[in-house]
Amino acid sequence: MSLARVHNFAISLDGYGTGEGLSRDAPFGHAGHRLHTWMFATRWWHESRGEPGGTGGVDDALARRFGPGIGAEIMGAGKFGHPGWHEDPRWRGWWGSDPPFHTPVFVLTRHPRPSIGMEGGTTFHFLDAPPAEALERAREAAGGLDVRIGGGPTLVRDFLAAGLVDHLHVVVVPILLGRGVRLWDGLEGLEKDYDVEVAPSPSGVTHLTFERARG
Amino acid sequence: MSLARVHNFAISLDGYGTGEGLSRDAPFGHAGHRLHTWMFATRWWHESRGEPGGTGGVDDALARRFGPGIGAEIMGAGKFGHPGWHEDPRWRGWWGSDPPFHTPVFVLTRHPRPSIGMEGGTTFHFLDAPPAEALERAREAAGGLDVRIGGGPTLVRDFLAAGLVDHLHVVVVPILLGRGVRLWDGLEGLEKDYDVEVAPSPSGVTHLTFERARG
Repeated sequence: MSLARVHNFAISLDGYGTGEGLSRDAPFGHAGHRLHTWMFATRWWHESRGEPGGTGGVDDALARRFGPGIGAEIMGAGKFGHPGWHEDPRWRGWWGSDPPFHTPVFVLTRHPRPSIGMEGGTTFHFLDAPPAEALERAREAAGGLDVRIGGGPTLVRDFLAAGLVDHLHVVVVPILLGRGVRLWDGLEGLEKDYDVEVAPSPSGVTHLTFERARG
Repeated sequence: MSLARVHNFAISLDGYGTGEGLSRDAPFGHAGHRLHTWMFATRWWHESRGEPGGTGGVDDALARRFGPGIGAEIMGAGKFGHPGWHEDPRWRGWWGSDPPFHTPVFVLTRHPRPSIGMEGGTTFHFLDAPPAEALERAREAAGGLDVRIGGGPTLVRDFLAAGLVDHLHVVVVPILLGRGVRLWDGLEGLEKDYDVEVAPSPSGVTHLTFERARG
């Protein structure tokens, strides 16, 4: 059975998955890079950019689960672009000509547009659909592989609230952002459906893994 | 120098230090005992009730820092009693005739009343004062020892926001309460003033320690 998986989803201690004041120059707003410095330090991240070095511990081991076994991603409009991107017909995402997805990517938006083929196997499809329907579409495109629920926080929260996530990897960064978009709102009792594991890293972040409990 | 310390302050993954629907029968509202089962399991807790058994690991080691070196506590009105306790002249707290504080305790309330001497060294004083002034009063009463900032979440947050806390021990319990009173609201950048340590426990909770950084 194809799973729906969230990987490397970073939040602050106070639960924010992105900051306030998102813009073309600040994809995470006032959070800047602070939610992801743990990831940039890993060997996996360095490898993906053709650079030597990087750490090889638990951060690296968990971060590199991002790719294997994934056949499609679903992301929110807020991950694909800055506020207002849908008014820019030339906007093709933040990631340059060869985005790091290498699969079909379904962007959930109220402003669908024609699909965009990129280098490296990524194709952006634009879809105005609720979570369950989007997941069905992504599963078809994934050819039996898993579907990554890519973020941002609103999208992940919507998929969690709909009971559609099988594997959730959250990385808690020991900072207090104070404002932005929170992951956990409205998810009372979520833990009951999952086996929860907590794994700290010497880098200071804490990895939470929610694995759907076997019935 | 006398320190202001917070100990054993438990919150859910989504940051709630107490639930919703507080009442005389439900001091933590819909959270019930869930924020404190880790503590009830410790040897320290068992000892305090004259019972054998209990766990002896990191939960126990950190939990029993609660008492030593403390000469006074400050607590909020919401910790001292259920909503409306101030209308009940006979209310003397949740803890019976011998409360577990054994020091002067300053209850911050807009409805001060005469002090109440209890067994075992606890005296409840009632004070309508802002955090800094309350801390000054408690320090005087503590005779050179430290002051415990006892909770609930609103009180701890107010003292953190005022920069008055030297040592903060928070215990993150892997449940999602969804509603209640959050600890972290409005504390953007708090970590900059502290050395932060994250220590997981086999019980499933995670201990966060904020220690004021030496200037």
